[in-house]
Amino acid sequence: MNFEDCFPIWDKLNETQKNLIRSTLVEKHAAKNTIIHNGSNDCTGLFLIKSGQLRAYITSEEGREITLYRLFDFDICLFSASCMMNSIQFDIVIETEKDSDLWMIPVDTYKKLTEESAAVANYTNELMASRFSDVMWLIEQIMWKSLDKRVAYFLLEESGLDDTKELKITHEKIANHLGTHREVITRMLRYMQSEGLVRLSRGTVTILDEQKLKKLSNS
Amino acid sequence: MNFEDCFPIWDKLNETQKNLIRSTLVEKHAAKNTIIHNGSNDCTGLFLIKSGQLRAYITSEEGREITLYRLFDFDICLFSASCMMNSIQFDIVIETEKDSDLWMIPVDTYKKLTEESAAVANYTNELMASRFSDVMWLIEQIMWKSLDKRVAYFLLEESGLDDTKELKITHEKIANHLGTHREVITRMLRYMQSEGLVRLSRGTVTILDEQKLKKLSNS
Repeated sequence: MNFEDCFPIWDKLNETQKNLIRSTLVEKHAAKNTIIHNGSNDCTGLFLIKSGQLRAYITSEEGREITLYRLFDFDICLFSASCMMNSIQFDIVIETEKDSDLWMIPVDTYKKLTEESAAVANYTNELMASRFSDVMWLIEQIMWKSLDKRVAYFLLEESGLDDTKELKITHEKIANHLGTHREVITRMLRYMQSEGLVRLSRGTVTILDEQKLKKLSNS
Repeated sequence: MNFEDCFPIWDKLNETQKNLIRSTLVEKHAAKNTIIHNGSNDCTGLFLIKSGQLRAYITSEEGREITLYRLFDFDICLFSASCMMNSIQFDIVIETEKDSDLWMIPVDTYKKLTEESAAVANYTNELMASRFSDVMWLIEQIMWKSLDKRVAYFLLEESGLDDTKELKITHEKIANHLGTHREVITRMLRYMQSEGLVRLSRGTVTILDEQKLKKLSNS
């Protein structure tokens, strides 16, 4: 598996542009729970995920968090190069949720390519539009869906990602994904336990009734 | 005031591109409260606002609304051309809040320019990044700010936009801007009235104590 096969617009680059990428591309390994981008002053470049899982989130002044979106194998992380765009006026944090192998196109390289190639600029556009769609989905969830449905959806998503019904996750972590307080999540999970949807034990949430959870999530 | 002076990247276009715009540009007048874009199937083109005011919002299945951002004189409305970008997977509505005069670059024209010109593509990128920043600001408001502060901020914004302290606006409309229910806004405004911040009468909210309102909004 090499970079050229994974970068979707490789064939749209000319030889000079390909060589520029080849000569500046960096391979990085980031262990689970490493912060690889922190706010708009931090500007390393464009990451392409060879393998792993990233989480993008924002934090409040009091340290609360909410997950904006996640990125997986072969996804591209644009906002780690956000300083390229003057009009990005917000700070997000990007953290590995699993051990991750990344290719990184340094920001100077990517900026040069974007400026001279309409294909690269349009691809950047599509990347931003995808992340914009993720965030719009999140607003709809926050605005129109009650928390029990969001928790149900989150547990099913986690179960799918790790391919297990026994989720090793704290109530604090779930709260940080969904932008709420630990106490609220604990109360919600206890209610779900009393309804037979999950079983709780220290550091673990076990999904007992996936069908009922799906029904709640989609209701 | 002509289009060429108002379109920020006019000088970056070549003669063919300029002529394409000149020959396809449409002038439109839209009266107050006209919906000029409704969801992703509706794809007319890029609007440049000569004068007026637009509101972009989303709606829930039950018909609730929340304002995403507003656009003013010389702003550009990108999402009325959202079908250009495959990765835009959300529906927004764009409505005039005042009588508006608009220039419209048809979507076929703008698509062609974006595909062949890195300058246009990068400009499109900056436009999207601006709207993305607006929406991220909104998420932060929804997540971390209590409703009293958001109402205070909204009243001050309205007062600034219309240059008056006597706002002709219903509680229903305020609710639709902020994504909540009319009853909630009524309760909040009554509380603010009892604190001497505003005075309520039919269809009108009068700001009595701007300083206190600012203090609340910034707290």
